[in-house]
Amino acid sequence: MLAVLHASQLVTLAGPARARSGPELTELGIISDGGLLVENGRISRIGKSDEIAGLCRPQTEVIDAGGCVVMPGFVDAHTHFVFAGDRLDDFEARARGESYEQIARRGGGIRSTVAATRAVSEEELLVQAKKRAGWMLQNGTTTAEAKSGYGLTIEDELKILRVIRRIGAETPLQTVATFLGAHAIPDEFRHDSASYVSQIIEQMLPRVAREELAEYCDVFCEHGYFDIDQTRHVLKAAKQHGFKLRMHVDQLTNGGGARLAAELNAATADHLEQTDADGIAALATSQVQPVLLPGSVYALGAKKYPNARTMIDAGLAVILATDFNPGSSPTAAMPMIISLAVTQMKMSPAEAISATTINAAASLNRATEIGSLDPGKRANFLICDCRDYRELAYWFGFSLVREVFVAGKQVTNFAG
Amino acid sequence: MLAVLHASQLVTLAGPARARSGPELTELGIISDGGLLVENGRISRIGKSDEIAGLCRPQTEVIDAGGCVVMPGFVDAHTHFVFAGDRLDDFEARARGESYEQIARRGGGIRSTVAATRAVSEEELLVQAKKRAGWMLQNGTTTAEAKSGYGLTIEDELKILRVIRRIGAETPLQTVATFLGAHAIPDEFRHDSASYVSQIIEQMLPRVAREELAEYCDVFCEHGYFDIDQTRHVLKAAKQHGFKLRMHVDQLTNGGGARLAAELNAATADHLEQTDADGIAALATSQVQPVLLPGSVYALGAKKYPNARTMIDAGLAVILATDFNPGSSPTAAMPMIISLAVTQMKMSPAEAISATTINAAASLNRATEIGSLDPGKRANFLICDCRDYRELAYWFGFSLVREVFVAGKQVTNFAG
Repeated sequence: MLAVLHASQLVTLAGPARARSGPELTELGIISDGGLLVENGRISRIGKSDEIAGLCRPQTEVIDAGGCVVMPGFVDAHTHFVFAGDRLDDFEARARGESYEQIARRGGGIRSTVAATRAVSEEELLVQAKKRAGWMLQNGTTTAEAKSGYGLTIEDELKILRVIRRIGAETPLQTVATFLGAHAIPDEFRHDSASYVSQIIEQMLPRVAREELAEYCDVFCEHGYFDIDQTRHVLKAAKQHGFKLRMHVDQLTNGGGARLAAELNAATADHLEQTDADGIAALATSQVQPVLLPGSVYALGAKKYPNARTMIDAGLAVILATDFNPGSSPTAAMPMIISLAVTQMKMSPAEAISATTINAAASLNRATEIGSLDPGKRANFLICDCRDYRELAYWFGFSLVREVFVAGKQVTNFAG
Repeated sequence: MLAVLHASQLVTLAGPARARSGPELTELGIISDGGLLVENGRISRIGKSDEIAGLCRPQTEVIDAGGCVVMPGFVDAHTHFVFAGDRLDDFEARARGESYEQIARRGGGIRSTVAATRAVSEEELLVQAKKRAGWMLQNGTTTAEAKSGYGLTIEDELKILRVIRRIGAETPLQTVATFLGAHAIPDEFRHDSASYVSQIIEQMLPRVAREELAEYCDVFCEHGYFDIDQTRHVLKAAKQHGFKLRMHVDQLTNGGGARLAAELNAATADHLEQTDADGIAALATSQVQPVLLPGSVYALGAKKYPNARTMIDAGLAVILATDFNPGSSPTAAMPMIISLAVTQMKMSPAEAISATTINAAASLNRATEIGSLDPGKRANFLICDCRDYRELAYWFGFSLVREVFVAGKQVTNFAG
């Protein structure tokens, strides 16, 4: 049994095990001088410190969180952290003024990461991914969705999905896998995207489903990648195999992706930088959760952030995620995403906390397991070096997360 | 004797002990599989690992930096990290859409931090500042300039300057103090700024000089703060007392501050978001170093970053700094500033490294002591969790700094 006592703020997010929207987004269920009790890896009680202290037995391990915020571990609902290599050369080129699209046209971008990822063994890919899993944990992420999409052949996609599963099994970071075979048209199909789409539908989807390597299927619906019809085609097939859907839509251009997400009842529509009012209304009608990824706007030096305020006003249960990837968002740090949301997108600190915990958990179909400190849930929580949760949004560029607990056990090895 | 071996890149910045400009900014003096030797707290040799290994004696402590970048500690040339309280309420108000100026007018902003700082004892102020010094060290800053300016009475300004000195004496963070009595017009002089300027000149400057509590004098030259004539008046008096000059200019409006910095031969002109071509030309003529502070542009949600490329093209020896302060730039993290410089201001990663090490050291008159890994300098260096120095700019929102050494000793206690 483990007790945490004297948190200056115990940020519980206690409440219904579902996504929150509207004014609920700011209801963090804060208990001052709060404490919690952990039994068998799960939270058994939350309350005032004196109440929790009264439940402790002589052998209970007690952690004094005085002067600290204690909160649920972050749930990062959109990442591509399993890849090989880096994109440092692309990065320098962007500093010299080249655009993401220009770099992609001359063979940089996703394609260069595909080449690097194909070239490594599963073991080498695992080594690289474990290091990044350590970075995520260190910055407070205890559950991460992770996508394939840098393989683009059956075997390479399966290799990535196996690594995602092994990260979940071999490190404290819980993973939820998404199959993203439709991330880009691979070079060998450059002039025949239809054949690649057929390969995804006829060969990849059945295999991934049979091996139970992913819960979600995603498509990069964008000019030059997969158009609306191809996207619909892939995702309808995915549904028939039992996958739930996440979608990359309206990042660089407004191609009607948000409306398609609504039509298909996707769990999430992600990016949405270019989505218009009609798209937002469509998402609201179908209760699709928007996943906002300000890290990629920042890192690309773009100015147009997704319109979070309009989405919140429309009643959408917004999520914030890192988009951790080597090209457009090389960050493992949810606190940085919270800073971006508040300073660049005018979300409140409280909204940003809900968007990175309970709402993200709900989008991954895990709201009964994680995302809040409700009794019965996994004891995934953070002890942060600040007295007020708003400081997590206020101080930027470094992490206030000091201790990370997963299923009640402190994570001590972040090296992977 | 201490040896560090097998750095994937030893980023030495070896070369002349002066500010670098133009193409020199990208000459980082990188030694692959590099090593260094420390004797009596100073660097005695740098070179290839095998060469350094050959100089080790049996009792030499050897650190294997395999797979890591080793580089000089960051020098943060513009901070206001000694203050009491925080500005969380202002921060939330900005997220709701209020401007920095609106918040200042209704009593928030600098004035609220002045009230909080006046209200605490020197000891309490020291406790708060030590925590932040720990954050800076943890993110790789080994020397920080620090300004007064939240006291605005003689005794409170002296209190802050004593805390700055004590941070340097009682923690591993080396400090360089700047007197910034002219940071804002205090409430009690709201309708009589001339009298406050007189008090600075006649009472504060002589006292700070006599007690040797600061090396530099600074003025916030801005509409609503101190105008050009008042600024000139204060700084000319400061010069007569032997202070060197730093200046806050052209942050919110272009008031001709850069030209005044040139006229007065200031060491630095800081901010410069609104500086025009004439101002840049004036700085170049007088060899004033520009201190660029992208953290405050970011945190205020503004869009106009200082024009680094034009300044570099004009031959200026640019510096990047955090502007660590509770209102407009709540960050302790130089890696975040490097990320901002590269992604938002189109500086190259190499330029950003020079701007945060040797150039910053030169602006503080310490280029013979710190800012590079040249033999003879203090052994202030970092071991970073990456193979390529460009990764320090690439990954963002968290720090790759793993171990920090000051005068050859590893910093182990960041808690203050």
